[in-house]
Amino acid sequence: MEESIFTRIINGEIPCHKVYEDDKTIAFLDIHPVQPGHVLVVPKVQVDEFQDLPPEDYQAVWATVHKVAKHQKETLGKKRVGIQIIGLDVPHAHVHVFPFDTIEEYRKTADLNGEPDHPALADMAKKLAF
Amino acid sequence: MEESIFTRIINGEIPCHKVYEDDKTIAFLDIHPVQPGHVLVVPKVQVDEFQDLPPEDYQAVWATVHKVAKHQKETLGKKRVGIQIIGLDVPHAHVHVFPFDTIEEYRKTADLNGEPDHPALADMAKKLAF
Repeated sequence: MEESIFTRIINGEIPCHKVYEDDKTIAFLDIHPVQPGHVLVVPKVQVDEFQDLPPEDYQAVWATVHKVAKHQKETLGKKRVGIQIIGLDVPHAHVHVFPFDTIEEYRKTADLNGEPDHPALADMAKKLAF
Repeated sequence: MEESIFTRIINGEIPCHKVYEDDKTIAFLDIHPVQPGHVLVVPKVQVDEFQDLPPEDYQAVWATVHKVAKHQKETLGKKRVGIQIIGLDVPHAHVHVFPFDTIEEYRKTADLNGEPDHPALADMAKKLAF
């Protein structure tokens, strides 16, 4: 199986704006955020669809989502924390976790062609890291 | 605290097209589906935001999502199972779980003003119940 971009991030071959890591999961900022503070929670095991994760890895992902969401809420003070799993882009299961205030903010689509704002991402990662 | 519409469903005061129930969670069809087979997974404890659920209820919700997603995939054969938590409507945490093929299907918004198609929902509940 070819290594996904997330496996390459996990292996340290590609840098990321990391906010959390444990033995089964990693959480880092999406470089094309739907909203500021948009985090991807990724299992270290490379499995395409989330429902095919081994049970321990599956529950570890949601435990990390829980920590990230609580931390986003405390740190950024938006009205809600939104969750999305889509799964049509990178063939490595991942959960989008991002704070928002309105349905328009929740439904916003990221500008995938824009240049990532790495200084702003680095500042946000400092705020959200735990 | 006022009982949410979901608590009233859990208590049997309002009917639903149920697909699964255990001691901590219930899963039933959304009467305004984004896609056919759109399920809501709801904790029996009434908590507004998902990240504030007690840990056991939180993990029980994701365990039920896992079962529902695997069953949707096997039964309906769509390309992916999508997940959404929004949380701006009913103040009782819930997870949207629905099968889809394309990003347009994932991003479709439900017609909340339409009359629910209860015969179609009842047929779908029979297919998805486990």
